[in-house]
Amino acid sequence: MKKTIAIDMDGVLADIEMQILNWYERDYGIKHTREHLIGRSSDEFFPEAGLVRKYIYTPGFFQTIPLMQGAVEAVQKLMENFEIYVVSAAMEFPLSLPEKLHWLNEHFPFISWRNIIFCGDKSIINTDYMIDDYPKNLDYFKGKPIMFTAYHNTTLTHHSRVNNWNEVITLLEAEA
Amino acid sequence: MKKTIAIDMDGVLADIEMQILNWYERDYGIKHTREHLIGRSSDEFFPEAGLVRKYIYTPGFFQTIPLMQGAVEAVQKLMENFEIYVVSAAMEFPLSLPEKLHWLNEHFPFISWRNIIFCGDKSIINTDYMIDDYPKNLDYFKGKPIMFTAYHNTTLTHHSRVNNWNEVITLLEAEA
Repeated sequence: MKKTIAIDMDGVLADIEMQILNWYERDYGIKHTREHLIGRSSDEFFPEAGLVRKYIYTPGFFQTIPLMQGAVEAVQKLMENFEIYVVSAAMEFPLSLPEKLHWLNEHFPFISWRNIIFCGDKSIINTDYMIDDYPKNLDYFKGKPIMFTAYHNTTLTHHSRVNNWNEVITLLEAEA
Repeated sequence: MKKTIAIDMDGVLADIEMQILNWYERDYGIKHTREHLIGRSSDEFFPEAGLVRKYIYTPGFFQTIPLMQGAVEAVQKLMENFEIYVVSAAMEFPLSLPEKLHWLNEHFPFISWRNIIFCGDKSIINTDYMIDDYPKNLDYFKGKPIMFTAYHNTTLTHHSRVNNWNEVITLLEAEA
């Protein structure tokens, strides 16, 4: 039986940082780069109160998030040797449910509905590996946690870290 | 830490059999009872080809399913001693996602979004107990499976069986 991997959506498959930066530039005419975000909270970074939350609740936000670079090719490659599950903490934002499913069907049509999980917390997810950008999801995971770099986790050192999808492939192909 | 229970929606919290029988009576003027269904497939039972599938794809179907008798009170009681997760195989029917969430918020407002999971198959769900009416979900479950009686599972004998929510309470309160 293949080993199993739970893969997060926002910040791992879907480039939510880029979506926020793009929308900010569209609305305020200010172009920030990903590097500017590092080490700051989104509220510090965007002076408009609650801006990120407002964006997240805007219809279309989740459906139009750009792909994380290399994600499609990497997931296809991993599927040769692993059973892949997409596990997204979507339940906090009910509006996101159909949009996230639409996004997955558009960009990852080769992932079956059988392998998609939308949840609240991820504490009852049981796979061999979990790739996620949030420590709250990885800290209590019973398998092997893999932290995908995002601006909000750069200072954390207690999980294996990958900076991009090439590094995921290198790490996991050695364990297949 | 409390033990965890994964509870299925359709056929366990939500009385999907009753919804189908009610809609059939509404559309064809024929009143069947639950006992008539036992031991038959839905296609044998309803001569109209694909009727159940047609109902399941009708907007409003999942949002208006009646509650299973005693479910609300039983879940509230179980929450005193267990951590409860609602785990529904909703991903096969994308239209059902917002309807199921709406239904849960209406009937079980005391269940947090953190404890709701919509998935495809349930093979990566890891709780101490799982209450479900489908053997395909229970057979590979690593915790203790509990089969909730439905017309389609009456002849199966390889899991602990409960016939109603009173029997769930009796079974699980002894294990808290």
